[in-house]
Amino acid sequence: MTSGERPFRVGLLGHGTVGSAFAELLPRQADRIELVTGLRPVLAGIVTTREGSFEELLEGSDLIVELIGGVDPARDWVMRALRAGRHVVTANKQLLSRHGEELWEAAREHGVQLRFEGAVAGVVPVIRVIQESLAGATIDRVHGIVNGTTNFILSEMARAGTTFEEALAEAQRLGYAEADPAEDVDGRDAAAKMAILARLAFDTPVPLDQVRYEGIEHIKPDDLEYARELGLGLKLIGTAERIDRGLSVRVHPAFLYPGHPLASINGPFNAVTVESREITEITMSGPGAGGAQTATAVLGDVISAMIPPASTPPTMTALELVQDVVSAFYLHLEVADEPGVLAQVAQVLAAEEVSVKSVVQKGLGDQARLVMVVHPVLESRFEAALARIAELPVLRAPPRAIRVLEEEFV
Amino acid sequence: MTSGERPFRVGLLGHGTVGSAFAELLPRQADRIELVTGLRPVLAGIVTTREGSFEELLEGSDLIVELIGGVDPARDWVMRALRAGRHVVTANKQLLSRHGEELWEAAREHGVQLRFEGAVAGVVPVIRVIQESLAGATIDRVHGIVNGTTNFILSEMARAGTTFEEALAEAQRLGYAEADPAEDVDGRDAAAKMAILARLAFDTPVPLDQVRYEGIEHIKPDDLEYARELGLGLKLIGTAERIDRGLSVRVHPAFLYPGHPLASINGPFNAVTVESREITEITMSGPGAGGAQTATAVLGDVISAMIPPASTPPTMTALELVQDVVSAFYLHLEVADEPGVLAQVAQVLAAEEVSVKSVVQKGLGDQARLVMVVHPVLESRFEAALARIAELPVLRAPPRAIRVLEEEFV
Repeated sequence: MTSGERPFRVGLLGHGTVGSAFAELLPRQADRIELVTGLRPVLAGIVTTREGSFEELLEGSDLIVELIGGVDPARDWVMRALRAGRHVVTANKQLLSRHGEELWEAAREHGVQLRFEGAVAGVVPVIRVIQESLAGATIDRVHGIVNGTTNFILSEMARAGTTFEEALAEAQRLGYAEADPAEDVDGRDAAAKMAILARLAFDTPVPLDQVRYEGIEHIKPDDLEYARELGLGLKLIGTAERIDRGLSVRVHPAFLYPGHPLASINGPFNAVTVESREITEITMSGPGAGGAQTATAVLGDVISAMIPPASTPPTMTALELVQDVVSAFYLHLEVADEPGVLAQVAQVLAAEEVSVKSVVQKGLGDQARLVMVVHPVLESRFEAALARIAELPVLRAPPRAIRVLEEEFV
Repeated sequence: MTSGERPFRVGLLGHGTVGSAFAELLPRQADRIELVTGLRPVLAGIVTTREGSFEELLEGSDLIVELIGGVDPARDWVMRALRAGRHVVTANKQLLSRHGEELWEAAREHGVQLRFEGAVAGVVPVIRVIQESLAGATIDRVHGIVNGTTNFILSEMARAGTTFEEALAEAQRLGYAEADPAEDVDGRDAAAKMAILARLAFDTPVPLDQVRYEGIEHIKPDDLEYARELGLGLKLIGTAERIDRGLSVRVHPAFLYPGHPLASINGPFNAVTVESREITEITMSGPGAGGAQTATAVLGDVISAMIPPASTPPTMTALELVQDVVSAFYLHLEVADEPGVLAQVAQVLAAEEVSVKSVVQKGLGDQARLVMVVHPVLESRFEAALARIAELPVLRAPPRAIRVLEEEFV
């Protein structure tokens, strides 16, 4: 910030899970945001339905973040902020699926931005990608797993063979389902999100009562058992697709073949596939909920409202470029089939502190093949061991090594 | 466009695969772009290294699209366009990986946009997501399959058990590899793309000679065979990650465990996973090359440069909302175990023109379980059949039906 320039004031409505995470994230990222935008963001204040004056907050804010949820008073407050010429960022799917048209119209009329990435699929950037990246494509279909609770429950039923009720209890225990899970499990939550996505993808207003939905309460463990026999996976799928000159928007459980891009989305994750004649399809996936995740999506929207469009900021030159890193390796050796070979190889590895995770040895006439996977080690150590192994007289061909990416995902 | 307002003039540099696709796509999408942006885009002209005057094109354009590739004369022309106050959209990874800093600086200095989604992973929106959606996150690691040629070759070697040379020949036959595939198969192409992604994700300049790379020419069929035995898949992986206070950027083949989000990316597709402490991770995938696909990414950038930021356009109300659609179904029936039951059910289905794809029948004491999958059919027909089946006296429990998504993907 040029000294003397005033900060960019962000007014926050709501202080629940996402609101608290946002209030914590904004000051933590303030330095980087200042680098990117040239403006230093500050939290101008927090107003909830129980505390604080909306009028005062609006007066002292350049942008309003709405995270109170529900329609009332969110609708009135967002509308007043837009009419007062403030950018608004919201993560409120109820509000947009019911009253989006009037709010988008107000934003256009008053020349301000209304951003809402956090309203659908949390930090998975479906809104921005459909509205901006694919603005030049003709979208034919959107398929989405847009409710993490039901995806967790179905994954758990498939994995553990439990009933819907048991998997729901497990989801509640792990914080993936609310105490009252009705809107999630009966498909209404997904229907509201698909109404928003369909509106954006097809430039067509989608009244919520035109979205058919079916939940997962009736799914039985043996449905999943048969699915496995047939090679299928089961997901709660939202669909919005062109049909002749019409548009169908719906939510229901569906079996997927293993090659489908949504078939491998398990646990509380969300994912959306967008199909278009120009591009075949693109798929995005990630955490669909969570305070920090949704707050990150909201902050991305806030920064976009602050930033000169598409400017790549100067570098911070804070990080040094590193060449030697830690990797696990697969090691493939063609060796003489004689006693003590494995011991010789193991000794060289041990001398360089390379630790073996698994070994497979196969005899092939007078020679043998030794395939091993070693634990993560500094690559320079592994390469030193490899150079020494290459010189062992028992080697019948140059050693071959390929890195192994460690599994660190949920 | 308000009558009297002049169109938005797009000057095109280059007329190869992507350039031709762009020249075809722009007029086809002009109506929709006018709806979204309020401006009608027109192609102001096309200049190649052999034909046309760059100076004249620049004079008559509001925005320049650079699709000639390579450094010379692209570097000079892009720089002159930026200095003349024109927005520039490019898909040129060589240019940006070698001369990005000076071009980004020129764009900032002259207050214009320099967009380049098409330069990395084609239409997969990695640039926009890292620069905009995740602007509020601290990125810790980026993993990418950013070269479709090598991903196709490795997929083909794994699928068909062929050698590298055979799979490369197949890739060339299908148009997934160039006549001279050296830059793709030795990892240089992926290294240039990872240098760009790393620069954006970590705000650190990444000289191309600091990116270590290794290709896939040395991969043998039995590496893939052992991988299968160990439950691993093999991909050419680009990595950019924080290590202590440093940054490592590298490209090499790597084995992946089946749960890794990149493990299921097969064929000529690209995919990028971005990890951050705030969000866990998000993954994006789709076609990484192709004229129409890259042209769509380029057009998305052009529209973003034209559009008032984050304005949701008015609806076209062109599509009617459809309720009855075509679906395949799984049907689960508990029936009396007596002769003729299957015939009764089959007769009802046939009467409603529901065609059976597969049937499994299991006896369970005095009753049987009939599980079938039916071919896609109008849902109202299937529901009519289901209502009649529910009334059959042989039914021992209400019938259960779940939709099956048809596999229509590459």
